[in-house]
Amino acid sequence: MTAIPITIRRARRDDVGAIVEMLADDPLGAARERIEDPLPAAYVRAFDQLDRDPNIQLVVAEEEGVVVGCLQLCVLPGLSSQGASRGLIEDVRVASHRRSRGIGEQLVQWAVCQARGKGCVLVELLTHHTRTDAQRFYQRLGFQRSHVGMTMRF
Amino acid sequence: MTAIPITIRRARRDDVGAIVEMLADDPLGAARERIEDPLPAAYVRAFDQLDRDPNIQLVVAEEEGVVVGCLQLCVLPGLSSQGASRGLIEDVRVASHRRSRGIGEQLVQWAVCQARGKGCVLVELLTHHTRTDAQRFYQRLGFQRSHVGMTMRF
Repeated sequence: MTAIPITIRRARRDDVGAIVEMLADDPLGAARERIEDPLPAAYVRAFDQLDRDPNIQLVVAEEEGVVVGCLQLCVLPGLSSQGASRGLIEDVRVASHRRSRGIGEQLVQWAVCQARGKGCVLVELLTHHTRTDAQRFYQRLGFQRSHVGMTMRF
Repeated sequence: MTAIPITIRRARRDDVGAIVEMLADDPLGAARERIEDPLPAAYVRAFDQLDRDPNIQLVVAEEEGVVVGCLQLCVLPGLSSQGASRGLIEDVRVASHRRSRGIGEQLVQWAVCQARGKGCVLVELLTHHTRTDAQRFYQRLGFQRSHVGMTMRF
């Protein structure tokens, strides 16, 4: 399959609305997000905070000038594995009408490549146990179901 | 049970050796770490890097002046859940001869409390699927086995 031509670039403040729409367009996300116009200020505050953080890259996939996907990569230093950094992938989304065309794969491959380039020995992520499609997707890209992801929501 | 009196404090450079020993004192960690004297410089470099990071707290538990446990907490901003930060708990260890006395519990409760205080809506962690004791421990503290933790090791 020829890869869909997309551009992966750092998210800007004016992408926040499009990103939040993708986060909300999902059975689990729908209950957690608030799509309003104007967007709740907390989203923009969070964007500014992560945008300043040198360890975090929030990127979007753009297809013909339209934002169609997003991904957040955190590169985290730590002592284990001989002081190697770890890459944490979060908030991977592709707009519902653009799915199954390899966009998510390109985003994740980009993140893996970035993490490797920044000296990580490991990339990790959590997917909800009900997201079996996502788990197959990540396995196809070389991830292993090696861990249990445990959460406490306040 | 009365809680064992421990002090939880920020790790210092001169704790790195004791922390690495705890990371290595474990079937999974033993293969990954290098205990040498002097300690490989990569550990100290990683410590300096994480110590400078305002989002990361590496702490140790001290009992009668001796380091007996450690935990790393990262507080990560993100857009999802209405721009709420998430707490990621990593590298939780208790020295093997001091286990089963509630030290790990105090460390994890400290991290949950910190994360909550910093406005996180969620604390998350990955435990290797073979660490069933750890999973029971976290469940007892209120964590759910909600996610699959997927990793790619380079």
